[in-house]
Amino acid sequence: MSADSDAVVEHRPLVIAGTGISGLTAAIYAARSNNNPLVLEGDEPGGQLTLTTDVENYPGFPEGISGPELINNMKEQAEQFGADTKNGVLESVDAEGEGTDRLFRITLSNGDVYTADAVIAASGASARTLGIPGEDDLMGYGLSTCATCDGAFFRDEKIVVIGGGDAAMEEAHFLTKFASTVYIVHRREEFRAEDVWIDRIMDKVDAGEIEIMRNTEATELHGSREEGVDSVTLVRHPEGHPTAKLDDPETEEFEFDAGAVFYAIGHTPNTGYLEDIGVDTDDEGYLKTEGGEGGNQTATGVAGLFGAGDVVDFHYQQAVTAAGMGCQSAMDADAYLEELERTRAKTAAADADTAAAESDD
Amino acid sequence: MSADSDAVVEHRPLVIAGTGISGLTAAIYAARSNNNPLVLEGDEPGGQLTLTTDVENYPGFPEGISGPELINNMKEQAEQFGADTKNGVLESVDAEGEGTDRLFRITLSNGDVYTADAVIAASGASARTLGIPGEDDLMGYGLSTCATCDGAFFRDEKIVVIGGGDAAMEEAHFLTKFASTVYIVHRREEFRAEDVWIDRIMDKVDAGEIEIMRNTEATELHGSREEGVDSVTLVRHPEGHPTAKLDDPETEEFEFDAGAVFYAIGHTPNTGYLEDIGVDTDDEGYLKTEGGEGGNQTATGVAGLFGAGDVVDFHYQQAVTAAGMGCQSAMDADAYLEELERTRAKTAAADADTAAAESDD
Repeated sequence: MSADSDAVVEHRPLVIAGTGISGLTAAIYAARSNNNPLVLEGDEPGGQLTLTTDVENYPGFPEGISGPELINNMKEQAEQFGADTKNGVLESVDAEGEGTDRLFRITLSNGDVYTADAVIAASGASARTLGIPGEDDLMGYGLSTCATCDGAFFRDEKIVVIGGGDAAMEEAHFLTKFASTVYIVHRREEFRAEDVWIDRIMDKVDAGEIEIMRNTEATELHGSREEGVDSVTLVRHPEGHPTAKLDDPETEEFEFDAGAVFYAIGHTPNTGYLEDIGVDTDDEGYLKTEGGEGGNQTATGVAGLFGAGDVVDFHYQQAVTAAGMGCQSAMDADAYLEELERTRAKTAAADADTAAAESDD
Repeated sequence: MSADSDAVVEHRPLVIAGTGISGLTAAIYAARSNNNPLVLEGDEPGGQLTLTTDVENYPGFPEGISGPELINNMKEQAEQFGADTKNGVLESVDAEGEGTDRLFRITLSNGDVYTADAVIAASGASARTLGIPGEDDLMGYGLSTCATCDGAFFRDEKIVVIGGGDAAMEEAHFLTKFASTVYIVHRREEFRAEDVWIDRIMDKVDAGEIEIMRNTEATELHGSREEGVDSVTLVRHPEGHPTAKLDDPETEEFEFDAGAVFYAIGHTPNTGYLEDIGVDTDDEGYLKTEGGEGGNQTATGVAGLFGAGDVVDFHYQQAVTAAGMGCQSAMDADAYLEELERTRAKTAAADADTAAAESDD
């Protein structure tokens, strides 16, 4: 290795970045395939699913299961087959060499370095923010991206939920337990949530627990760290996307009193540590993988680097689809590692022959 | 409809063909999306997984779960959200019309006809046979494709297992409970099974419970329905695939006494009912789907027809990958149905306008 090998803690056949659904499923399969995986748990252990109270649609649990419980089950299952989990935030993953000399160098933020023959990026995605004034100050002080985590702090308050997908509906529904009223602020007319969620939300609307503010966006959050959120500046346009139409006379701006704001507006893939490795991503940063039919669907354009779960999938984003991809990535990595081992064994045998022939001279 | 509509039992937004892992996962998601799915259970209810005693690698069950139990859980979960399951063997699925007139016609072998706006083919794959003499006579009489189902009938017998993948290893391992010795007959030198399975098999080899016959194939089964299997004709060539080299002097043929034979040589996708619909398949009959990134990955080339699970996937074939695809297919079908509904509503509104304008004349 060109870099200082003194810093290398350990070499592993396979390092898996992420302990969400996809990383843990990859770990279960990789451990069963004797690839002795090291699974790195970043700063969101368990991934997005740990933020979900009740998972109703992961197949196999007719009574539902809590997100944390499902994650714990999978972790136990992976460890049972020999996967090791380690806390550590990824700083960078670099690759050097080709063919039998191919090696990954994984650097953690504490300075620890691991090397590996293959890497699975299952590092998920993180909650997105709006980037509006007040946000940085109030995050964690009345502004949150996780109803399950923070909802109970805002009993009998007016709570604003921003978003229009499944996550927004689930957060809003959950927050009715605590709020005096939940206000769903959505920039368009239509929701893109599952019907079952919309139905439930409409029941809550009928019951007076939720109000829906369509074609509306937030432009500023007001309050203080001491007192939390006071109010939100909202803009509305009858045809939606009001912040794109601030000069339009039909756009109205108004202050809205609220005790808390929850963002549920999607996620950004966690790929910062892959910046220097030259892997293809789309405009939003999601990893590009082979796809197609047959094997190797989770391969990226970087030999030995595979991608699975929310760091790749910007569309389905379900626990069970992440699990499916995690399994695929472990099987793809296994095929890669087997081929690498075969080639290395052949090369070693050829080298031994050459050495033997030379010593015969 | 051009065909006799008297025979139509019912119209559904979505019909799902198959009650294996992928079909039931699709059913869970489709029911939650209010697509009121009818799930057709063919002649192998529950699919391939019901033939597995102990599923260790489906994420979420650290203690493992039996195949039938996992299937029952998923069925209960799907029914809970409103999916209906019906016994019925598919005869054919035809599509007619385009755009808003698009309609599927699903004919069962008992003559019942259903219509649907969209269809998910999750009909799986069935165990493959060798097509050698004795096979038809002895199937179910000493010859089996399911160790879990039939193993216990052959206590203290010599049992031959044919195959070299995970399924063959699992069957062989399981059959050591009953057999005096299990003989794994594999046409090549190398197994393509997971390492964890090969390790387990090697332990059983060391313990004298399993013998491996590499580069060997069966060419004939001997016995009778009354007495069951007596012996198997085997051929062996040092470089493998002996039946392709029968004239080679290095190929040896010999009789081998055995009380039972289990086939574990892969599967054929169940797509007979789709013959007339013009859907693309590969040479082995597996359905071709869009794949790629983003949504619509499970779409076939036939508008409104989606494919998921072992009827598509000839490579990964795991419970959790089938579940992932089942989920994707339901989400893809939902997007298709929503678009269909929107277009139909628009067309109806336009027709009403035209009618109103005409009555004004």
